[in-house]
Amino acid sequence: MFENIHPLILSRLRTTAGLSDGEILEALSFFSRRFVEKKDYILRAGEVCRFRSYINRGCFRRYMIDDRGKEVILNFAFEEWWIGDLDSFQNQQPSIYYAQALEDSEILCLDAAQLEALCEAVPKFRVFDMKKIENSHFAMLKRLAMMQSSTPEEKYLALLKKYPEVFQRIPLHYIASYLGIEPESLSRLRGRLLSRNRKS
Amino acid sequence: MFENIHPLILSRLRTTAGLSDGEILEALSFFSRRFVEKKDYILRAGEVCRFRSYINRGCFRRYMIDDRGKEVILNFAFEEWWIGDLDSFQNQQPSIYYAQALEDSEILCLDAAQLEALCEAVPKFRVFDMKKIENSHFAMLKRLAMMQSSTPEEKYLALLKKYPEVFQRIPLHYIASYLGIEPESLSRLRGRLLSRNRKS
Repeated sequence: MFENIHPLILSRLRTTAGLSDGEILEALSFFSRRFVEKKDYILRAGEVCRFRSYINRGCFRRYMIDDRGKEVILNFAFEEWWIGDLDSFQNQQPSIYYAQALEDSEILCLDAAQLEALCEAVPKFRVFDMKKIENSHFAMLKRLAMMQSSTPEEKYLALLKKYPEVFQRIPLHYIASYLGIEPESLSRLRGRLLSRNRKS
Repeated sequence: MFENIHPLILSRLRTTAGLSDGEILEALSFFSRRFVEKKDYILRAGEVCRFRSYINRGCFRRYMIDDRGKEVILNFAFEEWWIGDLDSFQNQQPSIYYAQALEDSEILCLDAAQLEALCEAVPKFRVFDMKKIENSHFAMLKRLAMMQSSTPEEKYLALLKKYPEVFQRIPLHYIASYLGIEPESLSRLRGRLLSRNRKS
């Protein structure tokens, strides 16, 4: 019935959004599926983000380029996360972010009209969507606090604990950028922790 | 008609929320007014945040205490900003933040039942509220990118440009904590910029 839809998406729509199987089928009918090859971009700085994209398979990084021309990674996104730039999408302003696939990926897309039609047809989806935006806001606030107060080692260990899959799926130099530290420092840090664990 | 309501609040409710004067009067009737003395707390870590608080006068700082016992300031809040912990309020979980008045202040408060009654009576208020949460999310994302990529001088100049009133109303050591730099470094930085400006 729901072939080719990631189990995480189905479980979220059932439990968090509280949709029946009929409502899930109806909701999914508003999305268009899109395949995105590894390294391809679904958004570049300067473009207006025209789609909400729900990741059905694969993963992405979102980054900006700072005044010195350096890439700064804001976040990674995996199955059942949204990727793109909501600010640009809602306000129809050019984005300041890039969103790039790090694996061969598949996204489920909604343009503004499809999103509105979906929320009209399945009102619980709107509540679910708002809740997800709020939760991502709360997580961001905690991350901001951590960026301000933690040592590189604490940041690394917190990421390892919260999202262990990041270390399976994301190249280390991207993780370093996300943590705001140099790739060499991250390698040294990992080496140090590893030898500490071996000793204990 | 709207005595003792800050002009910024009235203008936001009129233009952004699109409320008529009658709707504003009705909306305001759901709030309770509360005076908060300078240095008093409206929220402490470990407590559940029971109120949404809209600042009518004064200013606040929100901070957490990190694992090393150091205060980390997340943000300041002024007239027409909400202060507290939305995460704790919505999910009825103990907060990890402190919210403290930095001036004698006055807040307009809503508990969960009052908020729901207000949104039922004036549906445009719910849309306005969600929009504000979203905007604060977008601003937070930009701030996170800046925290990761900017030098202390860039962070200082960006704050001065975006919120000049911060430097009139907030003690310098709190601003240093917000920028994630040591107070002495901020003083030196200001001295350097000042003498540079005098020369040019």
